[in-house]
Parts: sequence; structure tokens; C-alpha cells
Amino acid sequence: MRILIVGGVAGGMSAAARARRRDEDAEIVVFERGDHPSFANCGLPYYVSGEIEDEDSLLVQTPESLKSALDIDVRVRHEVIGLDPRERTVQVRHNGTTTVWNYDALILSPGAKALRPPLPGLDSSRVQTLRTVGDAARMRDEVESGATRAVVLGAGFIGLEAAEGLRMRGLRVDVVELASHVLPPLESELAAGVHDELRAMGVTVHAGIGATAIEHGDEADTVVLADGSRLDADIVVLSVGVRPDTEVFETAGVACDRGAIIVDEHGRTNLDRIWAVGDATVSTDAVTGLRRPVALAGPANRAGRLVADHILDPDRARAIPQPVGTAIVRVGRLTAAMTGANRAALDRSGIDYRTVHLHPGSHAGYFPGAEQIHLLMHIRSDDGLILGAQAVGADGVDKRIDVLATAIRTRLTGPDLIDLDLAYAPPFGSAKDPVNLAGMIAENVVNGSLELWYADQIDEPGHLLLDVRGADEQSEDPVPGALCIPHTQVRERLDEIRATAAGRPIRVLCASGMRSYLAYRVLRAAGLPSANLSGGLLTLRASQSA
Amino acid sequence: MRILIVGGVAGGMSAAARARRRDEDAEIVVFERGDHPSFANCGLPYYVSGEIEDEDSLLVQTPESLKSALDIDVRVRHEVIGLDPRERTVQVRHNGTTTVWNYDALILSPGAKALRPPLPGLDSSRVQTLRTVGDAARMRDEVESGATRAVVLGAGFIGLEAAEGLRMRGLRVDVVELASHVLPPLESELAAGVHDELRAMGVTVHAGIGATAIEHGDEADTVVLADGSRLDADIVVLSVGVRPDTEVFETAGVACDRGAIIVDEHGRTNLDRIWAVGDATVSTDAVTGLRRPVALAGPANRAGRLVADHILDPDRARAIPQPVGTAIVRVGRLTAAMTGANRAALDRSGIDYRTVHLHPGSHAGYFPGAEQIHLLMHIRSDDGLILGAQAVGADGVDKRIDVLATAIRTRLTGPDLIDLDLAYAPPFGSAKDPVNLAGMIAENVVNGSLELWYADQIDEPGHLLLDVRGADEQSEDPVPGALCIPHTQVRERLDEIRATAAGRPIRVLCASGMRSYLAYRVLRAAGLPSANLSGGLLTLRASQSA
Repeated sequence: MRILIVGGVAGGMSAAARARRRDEDAEIVVFERGDHPSFANCGLPYYVSGEIEDEDSLLVQTPESLKSALDIDVRVRHEVIGLDPRERTVQVRHNGTTTVWNYDALILSPGAKALRPPLPGLDSSRVQTLRTVGDAARMRDEVESGATRAVVLGAGFIGLEAAEGLRMRGLRVDVVELASHVLPPLESELAAGVHDELRAMGVTVHAGIGATAIEHGDEADTVVLADGSRLDADIVVLSVGVRPDTEVFETAGVACDRGAIIVDEHGRTNLDRIWAVGDATVSTDAVTGLRRPVALAGPANRAGRLVADHILDPDRARAIPQPVGTAIVRVGRLTAAMTGANRAALDRSGIDYRTVHLHPGSHAGYFPGAEQIHLLMHIRSDDGLILGAQAVGADGVDKRIDVLATAIRTRLTGPDLIDLDLAYAPPFGSAKDPVNLAGMIAENVVNGSLELWYADQIDEPGHLLLDVRGADEQSEDPVPGALCIPHTQVRERLDEIRATAAGRPIRVLCASGMRSYLAYRVLRAAGLPSANLSGGLLTLRASQSA
Repeated sequence: MRILIVGGVAGGMSAAARARRRDEDAEIVVFERGDHPSFANCGLPYYVSGEIEDEDSLLVQTPESLKSALDIDVRVRHEVIGLDPRERTVQVRHNGTTTVWNYDALILSPGAKALRPPLPGLDSSRVQTLRTVGDAARMRDEVESGATRAVVLGAGFIGLEAAEGLRMRGLRVDVVELASHVLPPLESELAAGVHDELRAMGVTVHAGIGATAIEHGDEADTVVLADGSRLDADIVVLSVGVRPDTEVFETAGVACDRGAIIVDEHGRTNLDRIWAVGDATVSTDAVTGLRRPVALAGPANRAGRLVADHILDPDRARAIPQPVGTAIVRVGRLTAAMTGANRAALDRSGIDYRTVHLHPGSHAGYFPGAEQIHLLMHIRSDDGLILGAQAVGADGVDKRIDVLATAIRTRLTGPDLIDLDLAYAPPFGSAKDPVNLAGMIAENVVNGSLELWYADQIDEPGHLLLDVRGADEQSEDPVPGALCIPHTQVRERLDEIRATAAGRPIRVLCASGMRSYLAYRVLRAAGLPSANLSGGLLTLRASQSA
């Protein structure tokens, strides 16, 4: 049995290693176009920043280590340039020579390549991507040999990591994002905090605007934006997205959807004895059912392992699970993370949903060092099924998103979160963990005992705005047009509220949504139609600044 | 409707607050024997240590704040001394006067009190518990007025937190634990690391030994241990456990099991219109089905909330979920955490299980600051259902235990963990998260492709021990009697291994169990009966030192 694998790194190498562990006799050959069969691609920005000091740290495995530990035949700088599915052969080019290899099983793991928009001047030598060890080494060399200005095109995960790395090295950094805010998959009310953190780091953000040209200069390039502003750059980082690197295989008959290889639940393509994994494939989203490529290391590793299982033991191999799409990024002292579907995906898929917002502490408030977590969760309107969750904060964000990712995978509803027994001691959490609290709010929404209103409804006429914060807060950050009554006085001043409302529904608000919920319960018990602002003024102000 | 609640803090106050949110008209009265209706009992050790500076920080709510925000009538220093279930009344003593209160619903939340073993001299004024704000204030006063020596009796969660707090204040601290190791609920192979950390902090641990007397002196007390050793102490902390504080109610006819109130899934006692919550009740463990009191804040809060729901809306109230029993403690720079059942509980309940051990990094190894997590998971032998998990490490322990607690609550199997999409970027985790890795090992165990052997089998005769670590490691920490062949040479030296084994089964080992797994696969493919050491030498050495 000869298994050929096109492309190393996450998906390909996971398949190779698993295949060897399951079959000592198979011949396993990996063709990797680049210089390294297995490198830490997620670590590249941290090599630029200098946090990872040695280039060698990025090389997870070498052809030698893979040979000695797993008897895998890894051939770097070997590019697969042709596929003949009927003959079961691939053509492989190395050092200008092409050889033909036959296979019993072929695993395609070609990955994705940087999207290159039709931007005049993009071919400048100062324009770089950050996808290989060579890219990172070159960028670090330039930083260390005097580059002082960088422009990052695209504020997705890699763009922000690159921006932070370059800023840490002292460069002046501008980030340009066509979407209305940085980290486009993050909801705007959470992106505002990331935006503020970037500013605090000294990174200039240009959001909602595109570059129109890159002009070449002797000393530097100039990135021209749509509003005419001009940004000088010694380094231009191109990070506007990726697309599957599949032309060779699509040409040979492998069925694709907008360039991404279509696979079944075992990773099989439309062609016999050909499987595919990783960034080059299209996945069906576990929450929305929408089909899209998922460029994440975890799902790629998992698919690689399961494809090897299916090749070697097809009757017992488990199906590749649909990805939930969990992702995380450090931005300065903040962490931003998300799991499941966001608003855009839910709107596209037509699922009816509600969103709950909260701002709990990362651990017990009475223990020093607690940091506020800004957390939101989308739940299905009819039954509260958790559809997605996102969080931004300085501490404890990764933990809560991992718990919620587990909840989404196991199809928990929001109210089910109340019942999770999460680890509590003051340095780690609260007796009611943020995840439990999200569940309590969700339960109230699902069973109808809590009606929410949202930040984008602030200007709708026909309501009484009731601000139940303390007097100090009300004067410090006033809400125009709101009736101001601290939540502890709502019971005794019900008549005043009723008179002012004059039949209008009441929209209650406080800083975070907690005190206003108590007031809301009192109003509702008194028969006054009311709703509580989801996430309070914290979310409202973030929405307005995004 | 008058709802009387006996005892504030977690369960009682959660019930009170929820009742008000659901019913604006109910009369809600809380009788709290102590000085504070709602204080941070889990924070007390950190007030002793000085990490929490102000005593006021410990007071989560006051009678005044509860009155103004929730219209709850809280009466502190009111002790309930009698119950007449037929008349639906309780007798309440305050300032020497007893009054009788009738109720429509009664919620018992009396909590637990310190277990006082029959130890001569235990009545010394230098012997203290750490259960109230007053206890903590007194202990801190003594520390600040010159106490230099403390003996902590009982090395459970609170005992270790108290020991650490006192040590942080510069006291010489001895910890005495009757069980064979500190943190008795933790498995011994993990407790070894906690033990080492305590030593590194300068705390002296006496494990596997009890105190036999406390002798009173003018300058200090002396704690005498069973081996005759004598420990001087300005402060003796009594933390050997708690028992439900239920005499009054049991006497009045509330059915109890070894002092703990028996409740149904809605928190109802055997008596009409009487519910009970918190540390004073007996729970059915979600994993083992064993009945036991669970003294944890999270389950108490949840039960309080659900009891209020059941009183006010019995037809729609959800059942109180059985506790999973997740707990966590900081010890120096380490975190120790556990969820679900441990070996002792599983042995008691007769469930057949296997244990997997691993030592992954808290995040990607190539990113600075990764710390090793020592993780174990118990899975049911027949189907891999996750029964329990524990971890010790300096970073990322709380996150993994919370994910595993969620997995246990949702009844995932070990192999299901492979499919969790956990958040990965180099500062936060690995593309294969420790939880995913635990799942992969579990899958191999469940499907029979991995046979494990365990540290306690090291001395069993009739096997060939095969050490596949590198030559340097082998000479640095040799394994007596083992054949030493680095894992990369196993393929080419199969004949030598076969000859040395001479028909005996082979027990493979390396440092952590990873390389030996690769070697194990090669041996097995060659037809040699083999098994891999669970957790490798790291677990073996820890088991030996525990």
C-alpha cells in the first residue's frame, strides 16, 4: 500500500503520522512544496515580534525526525504539478525534474494561498505575506535592518497578529480594513474594545476603507487609500484572506466549490482513492449548515487523522465532524475569541435568533486582578439552542469560549449552561461563572420572563427610556431623554414612572444590564410593558463607537 | 405568601433573590445566625494572606443592600432554634428573645459546621476554624500581632488555602493530614506535585499521620502527632472537614441521612412546604450515583434558584441537576483541579474503569511560557464514558477541567473529546489541545489499539521493561532492569528486542508516554505482545514519591 500525501503541515502530516501508527507496512510519502514539512504556521507572527527567538523553534518536525520516528518519507521542495486519477499517478517536480508516482491512496492537503486583490502596485517587493517560515524570517530581517513603517492590509487574525508583532518591534503600524471594523468575524460591539486596544498600543486603524494603489518609491512604498490618504511603508503586509490552492487538482477532475475541494464525511473527493483535508476543502458548518472553507489547524489535524483511519480501516472509521469554527487571537493585553456562528452567518442562514450580552468579571470581584469579560451569546429563538458565542477581555476569555465551544458541539441550549459545574475558587472564577450567568439570562429570554431590547434600537421613538444607574453614573455619562431613577428607588417611585411613561413601553437600562434587570422585574410585576437593554450601556457605547 | 429562609450565604441568598425576581409580592425573610447575610466564604483564606486587603470586600451584600435592591428582609444574628412543621412555624432567637414565625414556604439552608474530632486539647483558644468573616479577621489579627507558628490540621482545600495564606505572611507552617497525601480527593500521582510545591513554599507537610493531642502552653500550644513529634503553634487551624448543621431540623422530623437533609429533585424535604439547599443536604453524585453532601458554592446557588422556582411555579420548575463535583485550589504557583469521580469513589461504586495520563503543555511548546499540565482522566471500560478528570499545573488547568466538567455533564465519552473545536492560538493552547489529546488516548484505549500498563505494576515479574527514551535521559534517571533502546531505533532492532523478551510481554516506557506509544505500535505490528506505560516515567516517579 502506497499512500501519497500532497502537502505537509497540519492536515497532511496528521494523516501521515496516523497512517504509520495504524499500519507499519504502508509506504507513506509526503510531497511538500515548501522547505519544511511541519512548521508552526500559527507561530510566525510571534517570530516577527521576537517573542519566539529562534527560527528552529518553528520547525516542529524535520524530514529526518519524521523518518526516524515514523518511517515517513518526506520530500520537501517537491511540487505536485499533475494528477491522473485513472492511472492513479501524480507528477512531481523537484529541481526542474518531473517524476511520476503511482498511488494506492492519495491525500490532498495543498492548503490555501494568499488572496491577491487586483491592486495596482501589489507586485512591489515590499509587499509580503506571512505564511511560511521564509516569509517570517524575511520580515524579521527587514525589521532588524531598519524598517520603521509598516502597513498591514487586512485586519483579520493574521493581520492583527502581524500588526502587533511589528508594533512590538517599534515600527509605526497602520492597519487597513475594508470591513467596518477590525476582526470582521467579531460582532461590532465587541470589536470596539479590540479597536481601542490597538489604539492604546499605538497602532493606527483605518476601518471601512480600502487601499486603491501601492506606489513604489526608492525609500519606501506608499499605500494610497480610497479617501486619498497616503501611508508610507517599508513593509506592506498582505493579509486580506486566502483561497484554496487547488488548480492542479480541479483541472484533473477533482470536484470543487469556488476552488475548495468538495469532500464527504470521510474526506473522500469525487474521485476514487483520493481524499482531501485542511484549508483546501469545503466544510459544512456545524451550526448553520452553510458550506465554506475552514482555515483552522484543529479541524485540519482531526480530518487528517480520520482520513488515515478511513483509508486503512474504512468500515470502522468515524465521520469527520462538522467544524464549529472556534478561533482566538491575542491583541495587546486583550484576548478576542469566538465559537460557532456569528450574526452575519446566522442572518445568511435564515435562523431566527436572540443575542444576550453580559460583562462579568473573570473571577470573583473581591479577589484582586479580576478583569471584565465582554461576552455575547446567540441562541435560537424557539428553543434556546446555543448558536454562537464571542468574548473579549484581558483574562479568562479562552476558558469561557472553550466551554461554550464544547456546549455548541454537544448541542446544549442556553439554559443548560446553568447546570454546568465549573471550577470555582476566587482566583479562577465565581460561584456563578460567566458561563452560568449567560445561561441564566438565556433561560429568562427563552421562557419569556425577560424581554430584551438592543443597542441599535436606542433611537426608536415611542418608548420611555429609564436609566436606573446611580446618580453619579447618570451625571457622568448621561443618556439623553432618559428618566433617571436609581434601581433601588423603582419600587417607591412606580407612580412617577407610570405617569411619565404615559402608556409607552419602558426601555430600562443600566451600566451592564444587571440592575436594570431587577428594575425590569419590578416594572413588569406592576403591569408596565418593559424591556431590558441587553448588555447595558457598556454594550450600547461599544456599538456606537464601532 | 411568606417565604422564610434559614441561613443566608450561597444557597439561601440565591433562593431569596430569585424568589423576589419571580414574585414582587411575596414576603421574604432570611434568618442568618451570623453577622453577615452574604459574604465571600471562599475568600476568607485570601483575607488572611492579605491578598484581599479590606474586610469590607468580603461582604458581598448587606441587609441594607438586599432590602433596597430586592426588598428582602434579612435578619442577622437570628438563630432558628425550633421548627413545628404541623403549625408551619419556626422559633427564632435574637438577643435572648425568642419569637415564633409562621411560613407558607420554608427553605432550610443552615450549612455545615466544622467537624471536631475527639482530640484532647481541641478546646484551646488557639484552635480556630476558618468559616466566617469573624474567624478570618481574628486569624489575621493574630498574624499581624506577632504569631509566628501555625499548625494546620487537615490538608483539604481550605486547609491548604489557610496554610498558604499563613505562609505568605511569614509564619512557619506545618500541615498535618491523616490521609496518605495532601488534598485527599486528588489522586496520589497528582498530589505528589502539590506536595513538592508546598515544600518549595516552605510549608512542612506531615501526611499519613494524625494529631493525638493539643497541649496548652503559656507561650504557645503544642500539637502532638502519633509518632510523638511535637509542633509548637501560635495558631492551630482546624480544617479536617465539615458536617451538616441540622440538629434542630432533624429533631423536628426532617428526614436526614447521617445528618444531611434528604431532598428530592426539587429540593423538597419529607415535610410539606419545607425545602432545603446547600451544604446541609445530601446529593446524588451525577457520575457514581452515590449519595453524599456536596459542600460547593456553585451547586448551592443553583439549588437555591431552582427551589425558589419550584415554590413559586411548581409545574414549570426544572429539576435540580445532580452535582458533578468540580473543585479547584491554588497552591503556590500551581493549580490543582478535579471534576467528576475519583478512583476512591469509582472503586466504592463498583464501576469498571481505565485511567489515562498525559503531560501536555499548557500552550504550544514553541511559544514562550508553556507549562506542563499533569492530566488524568478516568473512563468507563466498556464504552469510554468520561467519569472523572483531574489536573495539576502552573497554567491552563482551570480551562481544561472546565471543559471536562462540561463533557461529564453532557455525558461525553473520551473519544468524543477529539471532536471538540477548542480555541487555538500559540499563547492559549495547541492545535491538538490537551483535552483533544486525552480524547485520542481514550479512543485508542476504548477501541483496543492501545493497551496500557500502570505505575503500580512496575515491580510485577515476567515482563520485559523496554525504555525507549534517549540515551541521555536513560543514563540520567535509569530504570533498573530495563532494556534501553531509543524509540527511533526500535524498528531496526526488533530482533534484539524479540530475543531479549524471550516470549515475555513487553512493557514500554518513556518520559511521558508519547514516544513509547510510537514504539508500542511498532512492537505490536511485529506481533510482540506489548503495553505502554500510562503517563510514562513522569507519572511513575510521582506515584513512587506520593
